[in-house]
Amino acid sequence: MTTDAAPDHLYHWVVTLSCTDGPGIVHAVSGAIVTARGNITESQQFASLDTGRFFMRLQVESPAARAELEAALLPVTERWSMSWHLDEVGRPLRTLVLASTAGHCVNDLLFRQRAGQLPIEIPLVLSNHGTLRDLVDFYGVPFEAAAVTDADEKAAFERRVLDAVDEFDIELVVLARYMQILSPELCAALAGRCINIHHSFLPGFKGANPYRQAHARGVKLIGATAHFVTSDLDEGPIIEQNVVRVDHSRSPSELVAIGQDEESRTLSQAVKWFAERRVLLDGARTIIFR
Amino acid sequence: MTTDAAPDHLYHWVVTLSCTDGPGIVHAVSGAIVTARGNITESQQFASLDTGRFFMRLQVESPAARAELEAALLPVTERWSMSWHLDEVGRPLRTLVLASTAGHCVNDLLFRQRAGQLPIEIPLVLSNHGTLRDLVDFYGVPFEAAAVTDADEKAAFERRVLDAVDEFDIELVVLARYMQILSPELCAALAGRCINIHHSFLPGFKGANPYRQAHARGVKLIGATAHFVTSDLDEGPIIEQNVVRVDHSRSPSELVAIGQDEESRTLSQAVKWFAERRVLLDGARTIIFR
Amino acid sequence: MTTDAAPDHLYHWVVTLSCTDGPGIVHAVSGAIVTARGNITESQQFASLDTGRFFMRLQVESPAARAELEAALLPVTERWSMSWHLDEVGRPLRTLVLASTAGHCVNDLLFRQRAGQLPIEIPLVLSNHGTLRDLVDFYGVPFEAAAVTDADEKAAFERRVLDAVDEFDIELVVLARYMQILSPELCAALAGRCINIHHSFLPGFKGANPYRQAHARGVKLIGATAHFVTSDLDEGPIIEQNVVRVDHSRSPSELVAIGQDEESRTLSQAVKWFAERRVLLDGARTIIFR
Amino acid sequence: MTTDAAPDHLYHWVVTLSCTDGPGIVHAVSGAIVTARGNITESQQFASLDTGRFFMRLQVESPAARAELEAALLPVTERWSMSWHLDEVGRPLRTLVLASTAGHCVNDLLFRQRAGQLPIEIPLVLSNHGTLRDLVDFYGVPFEAAAVTDADEKAAFERRVLDAVDEFDIELVVLARYMQILSPELCAALAGRCINIHHSFLPGFKGANPYRQAHARGVKLIGATAHFVTSDLDEGPIIEQNVVRVDHSRSPSELVAIGQDEESRTLSQAVKWFAERRVLLDGARTIIFR
Repeated sequence: MTTDAAPDHLYHWVVTLSCTDGPGIVHAVSGAIVTARGNITESQQFASLDTGRFFMRLQVESPAARAELEAALLPVTERWSMSWHLDEVGRPLRTLVLASTAGHCVNDLLFRQRAGQLPIEIPLVLSNHGTLRDLVDFYGVPFEAAAVTDADEKAAFERRVLDAVDEFDIELVVLARYMQILSPELCAALAGRCINIHHSFLPGFKGANPYRQAHARGVKLIGATAHFVTSDLDEGPIIEQNVVRVDHSRSPSELVAIGQDEESRTLSQAVKWFAERRVLLDGARTIIFR
Repeated sequence: MTTDAAPDHLYHWVVTLSCTDGPGIVHAVSGAIVTARGNITESQQFASLDTGRFFMRLQVESPAARAELEAALLPVTERWSMSWHLDEVGRPLRTLVLASTAGHCVNDLLFRQRAGQLPIEIPLVLSNHGTLRDLVDFYGVPFEAAAVTDADEKAAFERRVLDAVDEFDIELVVLARYMQILSPELCAALAGRCINIHHSFLPGFKGANPYRQAHARGVKLIGATAHFVTSDLDEGPIIEQNVVRVDHSRSPSELVAIGQDEESRTLSQAVKWFAERRVLLDGARTIIFR
Repeated sequence: MTTDAAPDHLYHWVVTLSCTDGPGIVHAVSGAIVTARGNITESQQFASLDTGRFFMRLQVESPAARAELEAALLPVTERWSMSWHLDEVGRPLRTLVLASTAGHCVNDLLFRQRAGQLPIEIPLVLSNHGTLRDLVDFYGVPFEAAAVTDADEKAAFERRVLDAVDEFDIELVVLARYMQILSPELCAALAGRCINIHHSFLPGFKGANPYRQAHARGVKLIGATAHFVTSDLDEGPIIEQNVVRVDHSRSPSELVAIGQDEESRTLSQAVKWFAERRVLLDGARTIIFR
Repeated sequence: MTTDAAPDHLYHWVVTLSCTDGPGIVHAVSGAIVTARGNITESQQFASLDTGRFFMRLQVESPAARAELEAALLPVTERWSMSWHLDEVGRPLRTLVLASTAGHCVNDLLFRQRAGQLPIEIPLVLSNHGTLRDLVDFYGVPFEAAAVTDADEKAAFERRVLDAVDEFDIELVVLARYMQILSPELCAALAGRCINIHHSFLPGFKGANPYRQAHARGVKLIGATAHFVTSDLDEGPIIEQNVVRVDHSRSPSELVAIGQDEESRTLSQAVKWFAERRVLLDGARTIIFR
């Protein structure tokens, strides 16, 4: 990340912040932006009645480099005890992808990343199978596979995940149909920066083979949910959901294929919003500043 | 239902049938149609791999009146031990509506019925509240209200339902946000001809105040499911589902309003398909011949 | 509109404004809100790269009555030469409805208005046919019909529209399938406060009987567009659009029925957003602060 | 295509046919299926009121090889002067892809083909640019590029298309964002077996840079249309359409990215239905037996 530039260079900053709600916050924040010679090009805010928290996301054009903007914001963030983050718009987020054998989500992420549609960089794909090596190789992304068939191998794999997070200064871990349950310790270590995708149905089905259950009930809509990973399996805060219509003529295997399309596009959408700093946590809910 | 007409009158028949699957069924059915001087104008079929049943729906134009068509079909329906039904296309289905205080579904049904979009007639609306009397009166439909606040009143109300079913030769009972659980006996008596509507979420939520739960999880899609009533509450075969996108800024009461829109249109769609004989039961699933 | 209240009464204000974009606007506006003891509960803004205009919508809770809030805002609105509007959240917008013979849009507006889902009041429905009198009567809304079959009758009808706009201090005119072309003079007089609904197809069809043309091309999606009325027929700024999927089996008359559903819900949605002051004009485009 | 097999081998056939509508067709066709020891597993039909044509698609399981089934059908197809086609379910359709520089549609087709979701084989990708060579190479598909910058090069490119159609016995040509207008001669040569994709808007926009025009009108829905190529540019029979919602905050370039997603999935869907013999032509319309 560059921090100096020609005098007339305009930085494009993204600021996200949250704090206990109260009067005067917007005025104080916008005052700091004025101080740092910034022009607000995008701004969204939300006051949560559930938690009493206030959330804000701004995009700011300014000749001010990071130090100047931070200095202007500091009194405000301290005054309201804010959680906050400052970044450059479009900076690629360092993203670790975990995969198993299914390629649809990995392919969608890699293709969109290369097409410039996803502001991420992927220094590594880790998998518990070698199946996707050729696909990942094609995109020039390093790939490592290690079997996870017992507790020792699982512990080793999770250590490798944490090492990679350190080694590459990872900001986001994406479970792109990684079909293993993470340990509570790994969930905790990655809290708020690990996104999972799974199928969704109306109504929901618990237990094994949900597509078969959905077929048996004659479900008319199937879809996918992208959510943050918590130790409460598949119950983390929801980031994005999509559904598509199906009918009685679809076999369980066709439902799977249809569901995979929804998984791919839903996961990529969630990753995009996260990378653009549009996803904020409000207790068990997400605020999405689309 | 008229059964004779001028010699050159063309009847428009709808035939639905189901039986154990096997070769030759379509040939035999279409042969009977030829025998009855009929031309098939619409035909749909489905062979269920789950139950081994074969389902068919035909629309047939023919100068043949009911007796002639029945006579032609009889050898076929007996040969394959078919469940079958013969009706005139567009004949209004005699429909009993049960309501409580919420008017959105009742209004939608009545308006569409009068606008000619729903092939039903409604001889009576029964409610456990008087709230909707004016609305129903406006459409010139008889309305009866009786409180259901204890077991005796509930039993009396359900007897009135069954009496009305007999009195008006009711073919379909619609629970248009009728907020009472039907007794297992009533569910059994109305099996396969009673449609309910309820809200739906991804994922599903059990228990009281699901809109509040959905809000708490930050659900991004809310919807509605129309299904047949069985004694297993809200778990009957699904007829139709719809969803609509919501975001974090919606309050629980806004989610309710949005959900009501989905309920209205989903219920009316399910009633329309049922009245057009497009809904067939295959075990716990529905076949929808749209 | 009340302007005084008990000391601890909290008003809920909605402020909309637009001006030439530049640094410091948000800071100045939020400062005025602080001055007027307000807390911002909802805020949206947009800087248009097309026109260089800045748009903002705020909801503000404050003990300040109108005069105090206006006084606080005045220096800011003058400094930036703003177009601006101040209103109470939820105040019903005085709305004149124009209709012809089709009832679907009128019914939807009246039902939602009474159900509390549309913050409007309707002092009058004007029609060039008597067809909808009973429906409008049921909702207790005055109804006037006058034929429009020649130039004189059209001129008289349009004078009645303008008189009613004056008489009832009308803020919004809704063309609920009013099947007459407004004169350029009436379009000009109602600029920015008159909403029309019409069917939409992919691709678009010009000329008579578009549903028949859409059928002939085998269109797979039909929909509706709600837009502001301008003298350029059906080409005004778009407020809302919806589509629904159809297939080859639909007759032209079925396409009409499906299209009407989309018209109803699209028009009601557009009216709701307008009444909530969520629709701002940016040249030939609308900004929708959903 | 194998035509003999072990005695107990079950073939899975797909039969499509069309003819002038009249009584007895279904009976005759199903009789031929019985004669050929077939069981109908899927059947759809449609009688077009526009053209008076009857259309049918059947899937049939039978121990009969091609010759036996053809012999059984011949008397029926001759008696009704049918257009008809017999194929094995799932046989990959020989598909030639034409591309330019945009990779989204080509990537989607290749990925789905390899994932087993598209019953096609692609012996060649022809392009007027070399841009996509690496992508196509990765999937092991031959790739040829030749510039098309003047009339001579265009004629040469089109000759190569026709040669490739002959050489590989091509059944379908897909224009996967091939940004050249085909000559009327090539359109005629590929009539009924060449599918194009283009963006779609509500309302439609003619002329250059439609995304910019859509942006200027503040369009709320953008989408894509897959259609057969005719010499009447972008006006051929529609196969599939999709739309997605956008708002005022989207720049023209973001609209392009969103539109590309719709293009990819709409084109792949149209190709899938065509390859499964679900797309029949009825004058200027398509019948889609989904």
